[in-house]
Amino acid sequence: VRGGSQQSCEYERSCYFGIVGKGEQTRTAVLEAATDKARVVGLRGLTIGVLAERTELSKSGLFAHFRSKESLQLAVLEHARNRFIDEVVRPALQAPRGEPRLREVFARWVSWADVPGGCLFVAAAVEFDDDRGPVHRQLVQYQRDWLDSIAQIVRGAITEGQFSPGVDPDQFAFELHGVMLSYHHLSRLVGDAHARDRATRAFENLLTRARIGTA
Amino acid sequence: VRGGSQQSCEYERSCYFGIVGKGEQTRTAVLEAATDKARVVGLRGLTIGVLAERTELSKSGLFAHFRSKESLQLAVLEHARNRFIDEVVRPALQAPRGEPRLREVFARWVSWADVPGGCLFVAAAVEFDDDRGPVHRQLVQYQRDWLDSIAQIVRGAITEGQFSPGVDPDQFAFELHGVMLSYHHLSRLVGDAHARDRATRAFENLLTRARIGTA
Repeated sequence: VRGGSQQSCEYERSCYFGIVGKGEQTRTAVLEAATDKARVVGLRGLTIGVLAERTELSKSGLFAHFRSKESLQLAVLEHARNRFIDEVVRPALQAPRGEPRLREVFARWVSWADVPGGCLFVAAAVEFDDDRGPVHRQLVQYQRDWLDSIAQIVRGAITEGQFSPGVDPDQFAFELHGVMLSYHHLSRLVGDAHARDRATRAFENLLTRARIGTA
Repeated sequence: VRGGSQQSCEYERSCYFGIVGKGEQTRTAVLEAATDKARVVGLRGLTIGVLAERTELSKSGLFAHFRSKESLQLAVLEHARNRFIDEVVRPALQAPRGEPRLREVFARWVSWADVPGGCLFVAAAVEFDDDRGPVHRQLVQYQRDWLDSIAQIVRGAITEGQFSPGVDPDQFAFELHGVMLSYHHLSRLVGDAHARDRATRAFENLLTRARIGTA
């Protein structure tokens, strides 16, 4: 680690590497940097070389941690998933069951996607959809878990009597995911200033339908 | 062009190159092959080298046609847009105005996405959303045109009295696009057998809402 002393710190992140030193903490800090980078260049664009430049760690040090590009990709994916749970899922679970929880999920997912490079999972889905390797399998599992989590919250809204008993939770999850993807697309690719309003209205439309039971 | 005579044809496509010869027709045939390839490897993965292998044309011949990777990307994007108009937009315009036309658009879009590699535009959107070059600008323009086309058909459905006058055509387009993206994601990444049913139901839900005017 270069520039490790407090005095010579130029960038906050390299400082951090200096302070935490070796081992598990370094690994976490590297994964943090790798996840930010992968959001912009894609998981496939994330090479050990690119990461060495970003973290100021040596290539050989990084190889010692990750061994191969694929295990780096898998580690980044898992790290991003943990961040997603910390930033979106866990705080949403603090909200009351049903609709309030769903609103929290939606608001937090929008914030999650509103970062440089956008949502890592959306990009990785396109990068790996023709693949059949371990990264693809991991992504599919995370995707299923995420849709199941949404469906589970919808079930809570039905139990609470907020949504009609006729609502299909998996169908709701599919449609909400569509709203999120459409938002991601319009906001990130097109840069449309109304993207957030459109997404919010689409979300409210979904809720209205679920309440009156036409979903 | 190698293998150009009828007798020595091993692959249909290389035959085709042999028969049509040089000039504009070769360019079209190359773009056809390039578009198929780009669907799988992405626009960024489409190099002159990859294309030479696929078409059995020489690299120097391909350079003569396309000059740079960027102009190849732009040409492929334009070619894919023309194909999209031929396969989705133009046939849909043959259907009666309003809802029947919208149904035709939806069915044809699903078929368009159900090919090896999926929809080129969905993949390119993720590949180029952090870019600000000519390929990005082209993509944004195509994306806007597509959403505008959907909104225009929705306006027709309002004029025909099929949809409530309170329906916001741009909001409808945003939500329909979400259904398509969610379908693409679930079908291609997750390989979910119910993806098509889910998408069809989501589409019908949108139509129902537009008829009763809660969109």
